[in-house]
Amino acid sequence: MDVEIVTIGTELLLGQTLDTNATELARALLAAGARVVRQTSVSDDPEAVRDALAGALARTRFAVATGGLGPTRDDVTKRVAAELFGVPLVTDDAYLRRLEERWQRLGRPGPMPEANKTQAEVPAGATVLPNPRGTAPGLWLEDARGVVALLPGVPHEMRAMAVAEVAPRVAARAEPGRTTVWRTLRTTGISESAVADRVGPLEADLAPLTLAYLPSFDGVDLRITAWRLDPDDAERRLAAAAARVRNAVEAGYYGEGEADLAAVVLDRARARGLRLAVAESCTGGIVGARLTAVPGASAVFVGGVIAYENQVKTRDLAVPPGVIEAHGAVSEPVVRGMAEGVRRRFEAGAAIAVSGIAGPDGGTADKPVGTVWLCAAADERVRAVRVRFPGDRAEIRTRAAQAALDLMRRTLEGSG
Amino acid sequence: MDVEIVTIGTELLLGQTLDTNATELARALLAAGARVVRQTSVSDDPEAVRDALAGALARTRFAVATGGLGPTRDDVTKRVAAELFGVPLVTDDAYLRRLEERWQRLGRPGPMPEANKTQAEVPAGATVLPNPRGTAPGLWLEDARGVVALLPGVPHEMRAMAVAEVAPRVAARAEPGRTTVWRTLRTTGISESAVADRVGPLEADLAPLTLAYLPSFDGVDLRITAWRLDPDDAERRLAAAAARVRNAVEAGYYGEGEADLAAVVLDRARARGLRLAVAESCTGGIVGARLTAVPGASAVFVGGVIAYENQVKTRDLAVPPGVIEAHGAVSEPVVRGMAEGVRRRFEAGAAIAVSGIAGPDGGTADKPVGTVWLCAAADERVRAVRVRFPGDRAEIRTRAAQAALDLMRRTLEGSG
Repeated sequence: MDVEIVTIGTELLLGQTLDTNATELARALLAAGARVVRQTSVSDDPEAVRDALAGALARTRFAVATGGLGPTRDDVTKRVAAELFGVPLVTDDAYLRRLEERWQRLGRPGPMPEANKTQAEVPAGATVLPNPRGTAPGLWLEDARGVVALLPGVPHEMRAMAVAEVAPRVAARAEPGRTTVWRTLRTTGISESAVADRVGPLEADLAPLTLAYLPSFDGVDLRITAWRLDPDDAERRLAAAAARVRNAVEAGYYGEGEADLAAVVLDRARARGLRLAVAESCTGGIVGARLTAVPGASAVFVGGVIAYENQVKTRDLAVPPGVIEAHGAVSEPVVRGMAEGVRRRFEAGAAIAVSGIAGPDGGTADKPVGTVWLCAAADERVRAVRVRFPGDRAEIRTRAAQAALDLMRRTLEGSG
Repeated sequence: MDVEIVTIGTELLLGQTLDTNATELARALLAAGARVVRQTSVSDDPEAVRDALAGALARTRFAVATGGLGPTRDDVTKRVAAELFGVPLVTDDAYLRRLEERWQRLGRPGPMPEANKTQAEVPAGATVLPNPRGTAPGLWLEDARGVVALLPGVPHEMRAMAVAEVAPRVAARAEPGRTTVWRTLRTTGISESAVADRVGPLEADLAPLTLAYLPSFDGVDLRITAWRLDPDDAERRLAAAAARVRNAVEAGYYGEGEADLAAVVLDRARARGLRLAVAESCTGGIVGARLTAVPGASAVFVGGVIAYENQVKTRDLAVPPGVIEAHGAVSEPVVRGMAEGVRRRFEAGAAIAVSGIAGPDGGTADKPVGTVWLCAAADERVRAVRVRFPGDRAEIRTRAAQAALDLMRRTLEGSG
């Protein structure tokens, strides 16, 4: 079943707001078994809204629109949709009562203003889709020409209603018993081309499932998608494909979906009964910030030293000044010394240390901008690696923090 | 002048990619004096691309499209545009030579592959728009029916070409001598309603310029927009409006546009000849990470201690254990002790300290989740404040880091 998305709001055409609704809605409709063939954004102008909705109806007989349902005069969607279906706006008494109850429940003073009552006006014959997070109801209009579903433009209201109200109705009309679902496997510390070398040969076997490579500063995510299959078949094939892909990327794999590498590191350290400290130079606190972003980090994470200036490395982490003079602050002995120093000082069994040149200045022929030494220590196991990261200062720092966490993960796992 | 944007790419309709190109392009076209009246996304399907481009041409005689210009068979935009204008694809010899020079300059082995040569095929009569960051050229097709401008879909390539190639050509055709421009004033440490109380009374005076409130975790940005005015008039009015708004928000203002509060803090400390250290508990490194994100931070920033565990606060920052026992780790004496301790240890004239309850656990009736003590010390001036931040763990930590930087800024400025 083909559908079109129409997002309504002048701010979208001024380049002031990223259209996250279009993306979220596309995902929800796809998961419900529909195919989104076009997405259109128009301003709050009635003509433009009418033209966009009528065009979508004519092409696919199914339009899902967001925005323009509020109580102000900018909000024209409901009126235009009613005209398009040739029906008047009428007050929905049940919805009006709910609005008034809500007004009183929230303890607002005085009677509900007239402007709010317009929220209860709906095109005659439309189905009202309840909005648990706001006052503008969703609407479902349908006649021989097709369906127009209207959702509010506030993202968290839209998202909840897309999943609860629109997706089930779409699924009931889409190819019966078909779904499009995916799983995302997260990898890091392995280049996109190395991932492709390992996983590429599997692709033909995985069909009809498809595999997409999604590289970012954090690594390469692998998305396996099952298109329009029977739900059980899709789940079974996805599970088998995920196992094969995971096997192929070996130690590069660290989790699925939204898995966070910092949380994985904390889990691995907890499992080994180790407490963790950090010593950061060029990352300046990013590794600590990522670890402490995880709820409950305090069970494992002790703290750290941001050793930005060399004097902090010598005085607070006991790296001998002579070692810095001889090898430079960005060197294997210094990063090893930082890890050992912070372990001793904080009485931690595990430590991460980072020292590098994030730029834009400070690079040399031997150690160009992007050169970073990383060290991970866990009990007697201590590993240090030199990496050269591409990109600008922000990219180098982000990549260095991720690589430092990954070195810690691999060291804790005893993997490659 | 009305224009339409067409973004091409199946990934946009699968909900896998946020359409940042549409937003960036809208902003560039608006600044060039055009009005974007519709934005359409379609998949890489030739029929869909043709229909979208033809529709845009018919409605506004001006379409700017992104995506589908690469060398693979998914990339159909160029071919479809040539058909639409009734011209063949021909090899642009000058562009072919540039591609071959680039191939050699990058030291690639062997001759350039045939697939790359298709990049030099352009619709006959089209103007080639150079792409300094990639191999797919932009194209400008024009005849009596109107203009279709094609840009690559890779965001950083698209952005550079929108500004360098498309915007000037659009400005030359738009309402002569009219521009839409804005300035953004950044404020923090002052609530949206307090900003509105101060700035709201000015709004009528600022007309025809408009004022928008853009709240985020970092504070409230105020965007003043001059719509379709003569460029000199727009600049003059914007400068006067910015001065008035800035005056009204007083110490809440910290910079314009993309100004970064951490960079402002480093500037203020540098101006006062002070070096800066941090002591972070609940923010776990975020304040250090933000300061060291600024190029050249090492001239001012010494380093810091991530004092996550209480033992780090006592042992490394010399906060007496009795003080923590008596007042709790989230308290005025502890945060003051952390700031003094890190100043002494790191021989810094200025210090920031943060201790709070980021949640989800750890809240009490007295100190609910979101309670954070902040301290800023600069020479003899030391200020500590207690704040309660809304939101989840991530929001509380982000807001606490921003508020800590802002307290340091105000302390260094000697302002409110």
